[in-house]
Amino acid sequence: MQITMSLDGYVAGPNPSLEHPLGERGEELHQWAFAARSFREMHGMEGGEPGPDSDIITEAFQNVGAYILGRNMFGGGPGPWDESWRGWWGDDPPYHAPAFILTHHAREPLEMQGGTTFYFVTDGIHAALDRAKNAAGEKDVAIAGGADVVQQYLKAGLIDEMEIHVVPPLLGSGTRLFDNMDGRQAQYDVVRVVSSPAVTHVKYRLRR
Amino acid sequence: MQITMSLDGYVAGPNPSLEHPLGERGEELHQWAFAARSFREMHGMEGGEPGPDSDIITEAFQNVGAYILGRNMFGGGPGPWDESWRGWWGDDPPYHAPAFILTHHAREPLEMQGGTTFYFVTDGIHAALDRAKNAAGEKDVAIAGGADVVQQYLKAGLIDEMEIHVVPPLLGSGTRLFDNMDGRQAQYDVVRVVSSPAVTHVKYRLRR
Repeated sequence: MQITMSLDGYVAGPNPSLEHPLGERGEELHQWAFAARSFREMHGMEGGEPGPDSDIITEAFQNVGAYILGRNMFGGGPGPWDESWRGWWGDDPPYHAPAFILTHHAREPLEMQGGTTFYFVTDGIHAALDRAKNAAGEKDVAIAGGADVVQQYLKAGLIDEMEIHVVPPLLGSGTRLFDNMDGRQAQYDVVRVVSSPAVTHVKYRLRR
Repeated sequence: MQITMSLDGYVAGPNPSLEHPLGERGEELHQWAFAARSFREMHGMEGGEPGPDSDIITEAFQNVGAYILGRNMFGGGPGPWDESWRGWWGDDPPYHAPAFILTHHAREPLEMQGGTTFYFVTDGIHAALDRAKNAAGEKDVAIAGGADVVQQYLKAGLIDEMEIHVVPPLLGSGTRLFDNMDGRQAQYDVVRVVSSPAVTHVKYRLRR
């Protein structure tokens, strides 16, 4: 799992909407990634800076064989699916791998361009993880967010490695990452810290 | 204001006690400071590392003419004062300046060695700030914590500059810094970021 968080603990701003899926000021969180060459390449854009931030993005995605994401990361709003909705990500989503979407509403798999197929999982986080592990084979499973999905896997002690990208802006409100843990935060060891003025990347491994 | 915070947002661990005034695992937050030469000098200890972390501690204290702190930072538990209690900090506290303690219980000023005098203020944060500004003269007033005091001054928009020292450990529970803000977080601009593997120092200035 890897995710960007404001220094005051938010991974999305308040009042997310179709126009601002990351919430108010949510884009500020991701400026470091938008500026990085590897991120821009992954999203079909030119330019961007090489360097440590770019390398960390490359590393985060290079061995991923399957993704798990919450419904809001795919988009479409609450309730049963509008089958015409094919997600935020356009025809060629940046996953390029099977992506398992946690939802309360069944839907047929959705095959996109570039290797991404969205599967809709209605029987919970353990079932989604089993299916993602099978799909990933020898490769890693990435928990792609949002915060509610990450919190469920953290509470269950199922995240082996995570990297938090901490950025300086103070959002003041929105969706917290480390919340709703009911005191069940597992113990993590710090395995690497990489810093630039724009972002501090802290990588953790679950203590067994 | 400057304070050390875990990456998941805590400035003290759970269950603070006389033996662990910073709460369980609270000492982990401050390892970076304990290891710094300037901190050790301020507390009458030998050794420690010079370098950016040490310099930042020196800078944080060099122009301070008065401090404001919460009752728990002085210590002594709830309720009226036991007049024999002279605080956590020994005979020669590290403040070396007037220190104004926010409390609900009046007490005569307490003159310590080394230039520290503790004044007990019962009429709120604005009165404490006025008295501290008068005492500081041309110098700065430092809000020395804890979290409840910082939150009151942050909500009132009275903190001009702050530096958050973010450390990697995940405490999972305890006292949050950015909490109880009721959406009244003022806007801050990032003016400096200094990082080492042990700690990321982010300095903010109030946007006017």
